Amino acid sequence: MTDRRSYWAWGMESQEPTPAKREAAAKAMSERFGASLDTVQARSVEQLDLRPSRITAPDTLSEIVTADTYERAFHTYGHSFRDRIRKFSGDFQNPPDLVAYPRNEADVVSLLDWCGGAGYAAIPFGGGSSVVGGVESPEGYDGVVTLDMTRMDRVLEVDDISRAVRVQGGTLGPLLEAQLKPHGFTMRHFPQSFEYSTVGGWIVTRGGGHYATNHTHIDEFVESVRMVTPAGPWESRRLPGSGAGPSPDRLALGSEGILGVVTEAWMRIQGRPRFRASTGVSFPSLESVSDAARAIAQAKLWPANLRVLDPGEGQAMAGLDGKTAILIIGFESAEVPQDAFIHEAVAIARDYGGQVDDDEIVISPAPEGARASNDAAGRQGAVGAWREAFISLPYDWNDITGLGVIADTFETSITWDRWPEFDNAVRSATQDALNRVCGGGSVTARFTHIYPDGPAPYYSFTGLGKPGSELSQWAEIKTAASDAVIAAGGTITHHHAVGRDHRPWYDKQRPDLFAAALRATKQAVDPSSILNPGVLIDP
Amino acid sequence: MTDRRSYWAWGMESQEPTPAKREAAAKAMSERFGASLDTVQARSVEQLDLRPSRITAPDTLSEIVTADTYERAFHTYGHSFRDRIRKFSGDFQNPPDLVAYPRNEADVVSLLDWCGGAGYAAIPFGGGSSVVGGVESPEGYDGVVTLDMTRMDRVLEVDDISRAVRVQGGTLGPLLEAQLKPHGFTMRHFPQSFEYSTVGGWIVTRGGGHYATNHTHIDEFVESVRMVTPAGPWESRRLPGSGAGPSPDRLALGSEGILGVVTEAWMRIQGRPRFRASTGVSFPSLESVSDAARAIAQAKLWPANLRVLDPGEGQAMAGLDGKTAILIIGFESAEVPQDAFIHEAVAIARDYGGQVDDDEIVISPAPEGARASNDAAGRQGAVGAWREAFISLPYDWNDITGLGVIADTFETSITWDRWPEFDNAVRSATQDALNRVCGGGSVTARFTHIYPDGPAPYYSFTGLGKPGSELSQWAEIKTAASDAVIAAGGTITHHHAVGRDHRPWYDKQRPDLFAAALRATKQAVDPSSILNPGVLIDP
Repeated sequence: MTDRRSYWAWGMESQEPTPAKREAAAKAMSERFGASLDTVQARSVEQLDLRPSRITAPDTLSEIVTADTYERAFHTYGHSFRDRIRKFSGDFQNPPDLVAYPRNEADVVSLLDWCGGAGYAAIPFGGGSSVVGGVESPEGYDGVVTLDMTRMDRVLEVDDISRAVRVQGGTLGPLLEAQLKPHGFTMRHFPQSFEYSTVGGWIVTRGGGHYATNHTHIDEFVESVRMVTPAGPWESRRLPGSGAGPSPDRLALGSEGILGVVTEAWMRIQGRPRFRASTGVSFPSLESVSDAARAIAQAKLWPANLRVLDPGEGQAMAGLDGKTAILIIGFESAEVPQDAFIHEAVAIARDYGGQVDDDEIVISPAPEGARASNDAAGRQGAVGAWREAFISLPYDWNDITGLGVIADTFETSITWDRWPEFDNAVRSATQDALNRVCGGGSVTARFTHIYPDGPAPYYSFTGLGKPGSELSQWAEIKTAASDAVIAAGGTITHHHAVGRDHRPWYDKQRPDLFAAALRATKQAVDPSSILNPGVLIDP
Repeated sequence: MTDRRSYWAWGMESQEPTPAKREAAAKAMSERFGASLDTVQARSVEQLDLRPSRITAPDTLSEIVTADTYERAFHTYGHSFRDRIRKFSGDFQNPPDLVAYPRNEADVVSLLDWCGGAGYAAIPFGGGSSVVGGVESPEGYDGVVTLDMTRMDRVLEVDDISRAVRVQGGTLGPLLEAQLKPHGFTMRHFPQSFEYSTVGGWIVTRGGGHYATNHTHIDEFVESVRMVTPAGPWESRRLPGSGAGPSPDRLALGSEGILGVVTEAWMRIQGRPRFRASTGVSFPSLESVSDAARAIAQAKLWPANLRVLDPGEGQAMAGLDGKTAILIIGFESAEVPQDAFIHEAVAIARDYGGQVDDDEIVISPAPEGARASNDAAGRQGAVGAWREAFISLPYDWNDITGLGVIADTFETSITWDRWPEFDNAVRSATQDALNRVCGGGSVTARFTHIYPDGPAPYYSFTGLGKPGSELSQWAEIKTAASDAVIAAGGTITHHHAVGRDHRPWYDKQRPDLFAAALRATKQAVDPSSILNPGVLIDP
């Protein structure tokens, strides 16, 4: 049987944890929390009980539309903590009625025409990696059709002079990279969801990726966007830069499927890195490592990687001692040796009390005259450990779902002047909620992206809840954390998007008149309000 | 008598060219064009004949509103070629009825309330440097009030940790820099209009400045914007980065005064450069210098300066031989010596056939062990000549206005894959029009900004027209050039904005549905359509 995405776990069905693996995870968690946690096994698709589809597609669309239970279940949710619990517990109250797989833009147009005429909601769906309720069916519609874009997955054109690619919106990360590789290029947009997120999804959620400084969000890599809206096509001109009115692309970026479906985009691409330089610098405190990160960012050396792990995160993700913070620094280039750059960055880090031996600075290819060093710079030591943990995290969560463990993350950004107070406020609000709800737990933080004017902190929290009550327990912690983020001046999301889950805080954050502008814009391009209703603004 | 802005010339009244200077310019131009050009002297303010103001301000606003002839004349136009000719010939057909100088945000609110109630158009006016008809009075309104923002000219807060400044929208470039200097910072946004353009003007026109690569437009330096709209305030949260919905700031950026009046903004600032490295590299052709510029941009070395002058521009602006193209490379940093960077850039330039002696690479402060070099790196030789010419150009135009010389510039951007054909098409369309209209003339080009995926070419054209017919002659050339830019895939403006003059081509360039979105947004924030009507979209 062909492999397919797991309806509940991150990854493919073949990657679902075995019963033995889940039992081992239960044992480990029992030890960690001093409790006795029972392993429940996941339901099979056949055991799921979904409300029958309320609608039927016209014959002209039957080839690309399905009411199959697996398809409807898989497309009901994204991959947030809340989604994981609901899927694992068999809670599929409000699935889409139909799932469509458009093969081309004409199919997208037909689907939107049909939904618009019938008053059905249409939910654009890329890789389904949303952690903010971005792909859920809304209430109050007679029918809901999810548009799974992953059949539109081709690179259509590579411009190797300008270094740009025309690619379809439904192309998943690995498929994009595989199609670029023969041309010697890479997009290098590697969110944690890379395997199961699409170019179109990156664009409409303003995804953040590989690069920790300078151009961090997908925004900066967009040369032009083509969307299909219910009112017709929206396509910007391909340009390296422009000052002609407000940027049309910047309105598509972050629109989260409420304005249109991204069918194609011209994206800026990179030469494949040949030169690398990386290291991990140890610091005695979060304060000192933050100061060093700020100084490197303000010196505008623009390392590809510049990530701070606080002592807790350093212990959990990179095997450190729990007292040491670490600054991971990585430079890379297709054209230029990076020795000089990393030495400047390390010199700044040392000025702020950072500790690193010269022979822990890994440069590849090794500079002439130096002793040979491992060619896979950035793949070993604390840096390598962190990278492994980063990629495997969503799979680790598969193992513990349903045990009662509450484990989630949230991310934000804040200007440097507010940073230490912001961290104190957010951390203590989250810790207090964990103590209240779970009788304890851990809160750790890292910086995923660093700007000259402030960091993007990414918090992880874990506590032991009660199986069956995880959702309300989680909601109390998430609410406390989000309230603190907004009260202390942060953004409710740096790169995870707003969706439905972040709405209460987003509504406090954005200018009211911008919401009015967005509603007016939606009315202009989606007059029947069929596209992803409830996301960003009220229908 | 206190000095004030010249009503017609670039600069202050004290800087208006003397009759002798204008006669010398007429002689020089006569020689250049083999013609006998008559010097006409500019009118005094007293000689101007303006339509009487049609409206009266309420008593509550009388302190900040004037109907003075000088004020109305000065605020009638910007500084385009068309504006220069109209001002010089005394053509003030449609001046604003009143000029207001709001002292604070409450004044802006009162003015917009009054205009909205009475149905008068309100034109936000910064330094008046628009070259696209961005500050002109519209037809079809019973009254027009220009809001000169330059009394709101203060830095309100400097955050030296995050490196950001809260500054009022009416602050002119030099006043901003003067207020930052005591703090050790600089904005380093130096458009050619620097002396007479404001922070708010830079934001709403998406101004392009000093930096030739990486962060070029003011867009990238905006942390948050506060606008007053007829429907109320619009203020974004101060954040180093965000992914929460489409960016509100990116809708304010480029809005050209049709959505609101920028009263304040938080802007990212820089340490004052201590380390510099610069040089000029000679190339035998525009093709080879373009290839080198592309390679340096794609290597992401991010020089502050990376400007190409074609052979014609090199001759006119940098005193070269008319056959040699030049690539000006400049690095600067407050924190990090720039030697390594410029050597990498020069190595790439040489790979593409560029010629430069090692001792023409000026590094400051001089690296240890090197012979002392001029501390003012980047101020001498071809680079220095170009810089001088760049800053004085608008003043030079003062001298020749009214002689019949047609001299103007236009700018765009284009992806590299189209570059040589684009240049051929645009240059020949412009040259053909010059030949037809003026019996000849010159077209030269430089790159003002360079991206990994394409250059921003900036064209200058000069020909001899007939005094009195310059406007129609100019319009024919401008139309031919603009048609060619749009047909060949470029943008109608990279950093000069759209205003009223670029509308026909902007309307072809932007997605129709984006214009619908912009109209809907304007209706939401400016329901009486009083703000700068006719700019970007129809009222």
